[in-house]
Amino acid sequence: MVKKDYVIGIDCSTSASKAIVWDKDGNCIAVGRSEIPLLVPKPEWAEQEAGKWWDATVRAVETAVQQVEKKRIGAIGITHQRESFVPLDKNMKPLRNGILWLDTRATSQVEKLKTFGAEKVHRKTGLYPNLYTSNVKIMWIRENEPRLFESVYKYMDVFAFLTWKMTGRMVTSWPSADPMGLLNMEDLCWDDEILKMIGVKEEQFCELAQPGEIVGTVTKEASAVLGLPEGIPVAGGGGDGQCAALGAGVVEGGRASLNMGTAVVSELYSEKYVTGDTYRTMCGCVPRTYVPESIMAAGTFILNWYMEEFGDREREQGRAGNIPVTKVFEDLASEIVPGEPRLLMLPYLKGASAPSWDPFAKGVVLGLCESTTSAHFYRSIMEGIAFEQKYQYEKMEISLNNKIEEIVLLGGGAKSHLWRQIMADITGIPVLIPPSLETTCLGAGMLAASAAGLYTSVLEASKGMSGVSGTIFPIDKNRGFYTKIYEKVYKQLFPRIRELVDEFTKLTSR
Amino acid sequence: MVKKDYVIGIDCSTSASKAIVWDKDGNCIAVGRSEIPLLVPKPEWAEQEAGKWWDATVRAVETAVQQVEKKRIGAIGITHQRESFVPLDKNMKPLRNGILWLDTRATSQVEKLKTFGAEKVHRKTGLYPNLYTSNVKIMWIRENEPRLFESVYKYMDVFAFLTWKMTGRMVTSWPSADPMGLLNMEDLCWDDEILKMIGVKEEQFCELAQPGEIVGTVTKEASAVLGLPEGIPVAGGGGDGQCAALGAGVVEGGRASLNMGTAVVSELYSEKYVTGDTYRTMCGCVPRTYVPESIMAAGTFILNWYMEEFGDREREQGRAGNIPVTKVFEDLASEIVPGEPRLLMLPYLKGASAPSWDPFAKGVVLGLCESTTSAHFYRSIMEGIAFEQKYQYEKMEISLNNKIEEIVLLGGGAKSHLWRQIMADITGIPVLIPPSLETTCLGAGMLAASAAGLYTSVLEASKGMSGVSGTIFPIDKNRGFYTKIYEKVYKQLFPRIRELVDEFTKLTSR
Repeated sequence: MVKKDYVIGIDCSTSASKAIVWDKDGNCIAVGRSEIPLLVPKPEWAEQEAGKWWDATVRAVETAVQQVEKKRIGAIGITHQRESFVPLDKNMKPLRNGILWLDTRATSQVEKLKTFGAEKVHRKTGLYPNLYTSNVKIMWIRENEPRLFESVYKYMDVFAFLTWKMTGRMVTSWPSADPMGLLNMEDLCWDDEILKMIGVKEEQFCELAQPGEIVGTVTKEASAVLGLPEGIPVAGGGGDGQCAALGAGVVEGGRASLNMGTAVVSELYSEKYVTGDTYRTMCGCVPRTYVPESIMAAGTFILNWYMEEFGDREREQGRAGNIPVTKVFEDLASEIVPGEPRLLMLPYLKGASAPSWDPFAKGVVLGLCESTTSAHFYRSIMEGIAFEQKYQYEKMEISLNNKIEEIVLLGGGAKSHLWRQIMADITGIPVLIPPSLETTCLGAGMLAASAAGLYTSVLEASKGMSGVSGTIFPIDKNRGFYTKIYEKVYKQLFPRIRELVDEFTKLTSR
Repeated sequence: MVKKDYVIGIDCSTSASKAIVWDKDGNCIAVGRSEIPLLVPKPEWAEQEAGKWWDATVRAVETAVQQVEKKRIGAIGITHQRESFVPLDKNMKPLRNGILWLDTRATSQVEKLKTFGAEKVHRKTGLYPNLYTSNVKIMWIRENEPRLFESVYKYMDVFAFLTWKMTGRMVTSWPSADPMGLLNMEDLCWDDEILKMIGVKEEQFCELAQPGEIVGTVTKEASAVLGLPEGIPVAGGGGDGQCAALGAGVVEGGRASLNMGTAVVSELYSEKYVTGDTYRTMCGCVPRTYVPESIMAAGTFILNWYMEEFGDREREQGRAGNIPVTKVFEDLASEIVPGEPRLLMLPYLKGASAPSWDPFAKGVVLGLCESTTSAHFYRSIMEGIAFEQKYQYEKMEISLNNKIEEIVLLGGGAKSHLWRQIMADITGIPVLIPPSLETTCLGAGMLAASAAGLYTSVLEASKGMSGVSGTIFPIDKNRGFYTKIYEKVYKQLFPRIRELVDEFTKLTSR
C-alpha cells in the first residue's frame, strides 16, 4: 500500500487560490495557482463571486496534483482571506456576491455596533468594532437588502464554502470563523448576544470544529472535478494570518511572525484568551490557543507608491542594467550608514493603527536637507515601518507579558536583505528567515498533516514542518544608533503633532 | 552739447559683474556681463581675487557702453555682494584673496564676538554676531594670519575697491560698508568700541560717504580701460539687498521687496534706526533711512534640489515636449486646488532663520498619503516658503509697527506665475511685478541718476525710475483656505517639534 505522506495546503486569498503539495518535512513538492477576479461595483465596495473561490481552487488543486502521485495525498488543509463571507439560500445558492474583508461600505454600521457596547463586542469577539469584520456587513445587508436578508439560510466564510463544495458538510473551524466577529472567543461558540445585536440566528451559521480535526471527506462529485481520489479527509482550517503564524512556528511565547506585505501584520502566541487595545485577538490554529495580532495598513505599499511616483531615474537605471528597480533602490539605500544626514518617516500613509488608532494620520518625513537623495527617502520608508513595528511590539509585550525573542519574517518585503537587517537593527530582535515564502499555505499543510495522522497534533506538525534557513542578528553599532533615534525622536514625534496632522487632514479633505 | 541722460548701474555680485546702461525712466538700454571665478581652498572657505572684481567689471562696462553713445553717460552707480572684503597693503596691493560673505570659516570667532556682548554688537551694528559679516573674518585673520594682519593698510568692501580703481579715492558709503558689521548705525561712523573688539583702527578703513553723493570721478587710467570719458562721477553705492529695495521702490512704509533667489530675502523700510530679533538692520540707499531685512537661507535652491533629485520623469516630459522642466512642474502643480489632499512643508533645508533661529532645523513634510504625487511635493515647496515668509512678516510687522500693504517680487522665483499667486494668497498681500528683473542693478542706476543730477535726490530717482508691470491680488477663496492651514497647522508645527528635529539632526551628523 502506498504511504499517504503528502498533504495539500490550499490558500484561497483575495487575489488567487493557490494549492501546494507538501511532504512531511515541509518541503514544497508541487504548486498550482489560479486568479480570482475582484469586483468593485462602487468605490468602497469589494466583492467576489463565491463560485469563483471554488473554480479557482479546483484549477489550482488540479494543476498541483497532476505533478504528484495522487495516492500519496493524506489530507487537505485550507486557509483563506479572512472576514470575507457569502450568504446562501436553502438550495445553497449564493444570494449575492461575497463581501470581502477590504470592503469599507459599512461605516455607519460600525458606529451602530459601537452603540451596542464597543468594549463588550471587543471582549467577546477579540475584535473592536471596525470596517473589516463580517458582523457590520451583515448589518449592512439587513438595512440595505432586507428581502435578501430574510431569505438567508447560511452565512459562510471562505473555508466553510470550499469545505461544503468538497465534502457536502456545512462546517467551519474556530480560526476560520472568528474573523467574522460573531464568535465567543472564550467559549468557542457562536455568541448569542452578538448574534442578536446583528439580527441573525445561530442556525444561519455552520457547525464549529477544531482546527486540524477531520471535518469531512472529499465526495465523489468533488473528487471528479479536483482530480483526486474520493474520501480524502479535509481538515478544520484557519484564516491566513493564523495559518501564517502556524507555518512560521509561532506556537509558543517569545516568537512573532511578521508579514511584510501590502499591509504589515504581526502575530504572537497566547495560551490564554486576552484582549487589549494595541492588538486584536484571533483563534490560533493550535486548538484552544490564541493569536494576538498587530496590523499596519501601509507596508510594501509605501515602497511601491514611492518607486512608482518618484523612481523614474532608478527605473531607467534598472532597465539599462537589466536589474529590477527594487534592486537599484536597495543597493543605493544600503550605502547609507548610521550617522549621516538622513530622513525619519512616520509611515501613516493609510492612517495609524495601534497604538495611535488615528484614521486621520498621514505620512510625515523629517530631516530634508541639501544632501537628501532619493535613496534616503526609500530607506526612510523601510526604517519608518520598522520603527512603527517596534512601537507596536513595545505595547504588545507589556500588555501580553510576552517578551519577543525572535521574529520570523514573511511576505514580499522579507525578500529584501536590507529590510531584514533594518528590522533586526531597529527592533533589536534577531530575525529568522523561513525556507519557503509560502508560509501561509504551509500552515494549511500542517493542519492537513495533523488530520492525515502524519503528526499526533497540529502543534507537532508545526514543529516538524516549520524551519529556519537563516538568522539575521542586530548589528550592535546600528542597534545603538537606532535606539537613540527611536527613544529620543520617533516615539515622541507623533504624540506631539497628532492634533496638527489631524487638523491638516481635515482641512485638506473635500 | 549732448544731454547726459544715461547712467550706468554696476552689480558686482558673487557670480559675475554686470553693467547696465539705464535711461531716466528706468529703461534698460544696454547690458554687459562677465563671470568672476569662485575659489574654495577648503570646504568652508569661499574666496575671490579682488583683482577679478575689477577685471570682470571692466569687461562688463566695456561691453555695455560699446552699445550706446558714451557721451550721454552722466554717472556710475555700484552695488555689490555684501560682507565680502579684501585687505590691502600700503601699495594698495591685496594681501590675500578677498573673503566672501558665504565663507563660514569663522565659527569660533562668532562665539568670541558674542562674549564681548552679542546684544551690544547687534544694537550698534544692526547685525547680531553671525558667520557672514566681515568683523568675525577679520578676527579670523588676526588669529590665523597674524603677520599679514599686522601689515594691513586698508580693509575694503567691494564698492570701495572698485571705486578706488575707478577714481583713485579711498571711500565707501554707508549702505556699502554696513554689512561689514563695524559701523555705528545710529551715528553713521566707524564704531570705536567695535573696532577695538576686533583689534583694528579707524584709519584702516575708508572714508564714509552718503549713498548717491559724488565720491569721485573716473581717472584717466580708468577711463582708458573702461572705454569711458574721463571725469564721469561715481556715486556712493549700496549693498545688493539695499539696492534691490531701492530699485523696487521700497522708499516708504507699507511696501516690501521680496527677492526669491537661491535664498529668499525681504527688505522693508524704516525712517528710524531699529533693531529686532526677527530681522537684521541695514543702511538704506535713501540717505539716513534704514532697511530691516529678513532672510531665509533656502529658497529656489529647494526647487532646484527637488527637480534635480526627484524630477527625472518631468525632465523627460519636458525634453519630449521641448519645454523646460520648471514649466512641466508648474503646470502640474497649478492643477492642485485648495481642499484636496496635499503636503505641508517646513522649508528649513538650510536651517531656520528668524523667528526660530535654529541652525539644526531641517525640512519637514507632512501629509503623505497614497494620492501624493510629485506635483504635490513641488507645490508644497512654493507654499512652504510662502508660509515661512508670512511667519517672518507677522513678527516684523509687530516689531516695526509697519503694516505691509504690497510686496514687490524679485529674483528668479518671481518668474513663476504659480508662485506669484501662491505668495499673494498665503500672505494675503497684493504682489507687484516690476518691469525688469534687474532690480538690484536698477537701484545702482538710481544712485547714479541722483549723482548725475537727473533727479534732485535718491528718493526722487527711485520714484521716477521704478515701476510696476502687473499686480497679483489674493484670491479670496484660496486666502481663506491658506489662512486656516497657516493658523491651525503651519505656525504651530515647528515650535512643537523643534526639540525633536534638533535632536535628530545631532544624532545623524557625524
